[in-house]
Amino acid sequence: MENLTQPIIWENNSLKLIDQRILPHEKNFIEYNTMEETFHGIRDMVVRGAPCIGFTAIFGMALWCKENADKAFVASEFDKACDYLITSRPTAVNLEYEVNRCREIIKSNIADGKSINDCFTIISKMGIDEIQKAYETNRKMAGFFCDDLHEIYGPTKLKVLTHCNTGTLACGTIGTALGAITVLNEREMLKKVWVDETRPYLQGSRLTAFELVEQGIDHDIVVEGAASYLMRNGLVDAIVTGADRIALNGDTANKVGTSNLAIIANHYNIPFYVIAPLSSIDLSLKSGDEIKIELRDPNEILKIKDQQIAPIESSAYNPSFDITDAKLIKGIICEEGLFKGSDGLGALVK
Amino acid sequence: MENLTQPIIWENNSLKLIDQRILPHEKNFIEYNTMEETFHGIRDMVVRGAPCIGFTAIFGMALWCKENADKAFVASEFDKACDYLITSRPTAVNLEYEVNRCREIIKSNIADGKSINDCFTIISKMGIDEIQKAYETNRKMAGFFCDDLHEIYGPTKLKVLTHCNTGTLACGTIGTALGAITVLNEREMLKKVWVDETRPYLQGSRLTAFELVEQGIDHDIVVEGAASYLMRNGLVDAIVTGADRIALNGDTANKVGTSNLAIIANHYNIPFYVIAPLSSIDLSLKSGDEIKIELRDPNEILKIKDQQIAPIESSAYNPSFDITDAKLIKGIICEEGLFKGSDGLGALVK
Repeated sequence: MENLTQPIIWENNSLKLIDQRILPHEKNFIEYNTMEETFHGIRDMVVRGAPCIGFTAIFGMALWCKENADKAFVASEFDKACDYLITSRPTAVNLEYEVNRCREIIKSNIADGKSINDCFTIISKMGIDEIQKAYETNRKMAGFFCDDLHEIYGPTKLKVLTHCNTGTLACGTIGTALGAITVLNEREMLKKVWVDETRPYLQGSRLTAFELVEQGIDHDIVVEGAASYLMRNGLVDAIVTGADRIALNGDTANKVGTSNLAIIANHYNIPFYVIAPLSSIDLSLKSGDEIKIELRDPNEILKIKDQQIAPIESSAYNPSFDITDAKLIKGIICEEGLFKGSDGLGALVK
Repeated sequence: MENLTQPIIWENNSLKLIDQRILPHEKNFIEYNTMEETFHGIRDMVVRGAPCIGFTAIFGMALWCKENADKAFVASEFDKACDYLITSRPTAVNLEYEVNRCREIIKSNIADGKSINDCFTIISKMGIDEIQKAYETNRKMAGFFCDDLHEIYGPTKLKVLTHCNTGTLACGTIGTALGAITVLNEREMLKKVWVDETRPYLQGSRLTAFELVEQGIDHDIVVEGAASYLMRNGLVDAIVTGADRIALNGDTANKVGTSNLAIIANHYNIPFYVIAPLSSIDLSLKSGDEIKIELRDPNEILKIKDQQIAPIESSAYNPSFDITDAKLIKGIICEEGLFKGSDGLGALVK
């Protein structure tokens, strides 16, 4: 893989996670040898990003097998441990999905006469395979992105704006939107990246900037308020973001601020792309109106790094995601190719 | 005037400025008794906001008269002092304008046989009168704003979003956009205010929130990324901002992020207003394209309260203002009334 700091390393039958809470200023890995330790790593946000949390959950299950390798399998104790791991971040869908997937695999292997130690080998290999699979998916999606930009602009170097963090730190591999920027750079089609800081959690200025520094990619951090300034002055050729969830009509939910960018891009006639794997499409949702948006702690806005910014009497309203209308999206890119947002995804998922 | 913390107080022949650098956490007034001290107050940003800097400059000139009340007038020394005061914030147009206005008044009075002590009385009274005049202008503009909203929505309570700080702390009186919100509240037409934090300098979460707390007005601070979320969910009835400069075609320059809001408001069909006195219209500018935008220190983005946020290898791009296209503005409001942005201001200023 590329020369990027891997946030998740499986080595000598142990898990190492980069502590994302202290990035970009310190690169510190924490080692995990038990499921209990892994629980705390997830809960305390050492690791973040839905794909990374999912991979960590798989390795957490492997570590349970390592701890219990020589013991007899007791289903009730095992289920208790699985349920416990799920509670480390109750709203993370990937976490529950991967824990339950591992739970079934382990139970089925035990039923087939395998030992817990055999399951350790199976599950830890599964974690490594899943990251490799994600890597291939990311590169494939990046290819569709580069091809479309090449079709629009021809062989030239482009200025691309992105939002939040969708790279290695979130995905465990090159990433979705940021992975596509990495590949655009490999193809010598990238001039520079505008990194919007992404308030309130500053994933742009802390994490995306960190990854671009590592890759030696030219970038400038901007406040989100500068979007129209940049586009009005011809400084942005394309915008690309990830998506947390996609409805059947092509509406997408992503980090708050994404929809601002799509509207402004549309105003200036600049192509706006969403890159996310097929697994982000939620078949139960007809449109973005049905997506429930998480409201997060107001202190993320009222304080910065534990320092009070706003008056103590003030309150804040902190929606974490927003909905981008399908018609504003030039292309939704998944493993299967690029789809026009306005066409919806019905054809794709049928 | 309203029950607001006055940032500029002229009392017992001395000037007191609230230290805006430590707001909203401490309310500390600094007293100024000489022009030299006033110079430092302006330079060190104890006071900010173009109107407030202008008023401070007038009182700084009064303090020069106080210091020299019993002396003979020496034109060369006086000119040197005036030129010095102007250099306290070289880019502040108001500062130079007010210093030069006072310079002429003092010289003309001296020529008419008045003493420096007489000039002290004249100039300090002029400072007080200018603040009173601004107050009346602000209230007049606020009235046009309320009337237009009443015409659109009828007698109901509205949710209004504003950007940056355009209240008492910037204007020395109720203010332009924030002053209009104050009057909307007096008329019982205000439900709540959305204060966008206004990165990078956080004028919204630090200063506008402070003024709303003082007035007991219901408000929530939001990140700028939340604009589309709020408008898509019907949570914003109107947006109102100030303007630093207005071109003849109605294009306006204001704090970066303003133009984002105008575009998003337009997308959702929500009225977007600009409130600024006639003096903001720059007769030399045909359109916003001719307005030069100040690029400020990247460290305002890379650091927050002196703490490094971004990687030390990263750079930032920090335009301080942006241009809002006239056609996106429902109304430009000045002392003369409300004008449609799309009509330009030619008729008004001829």
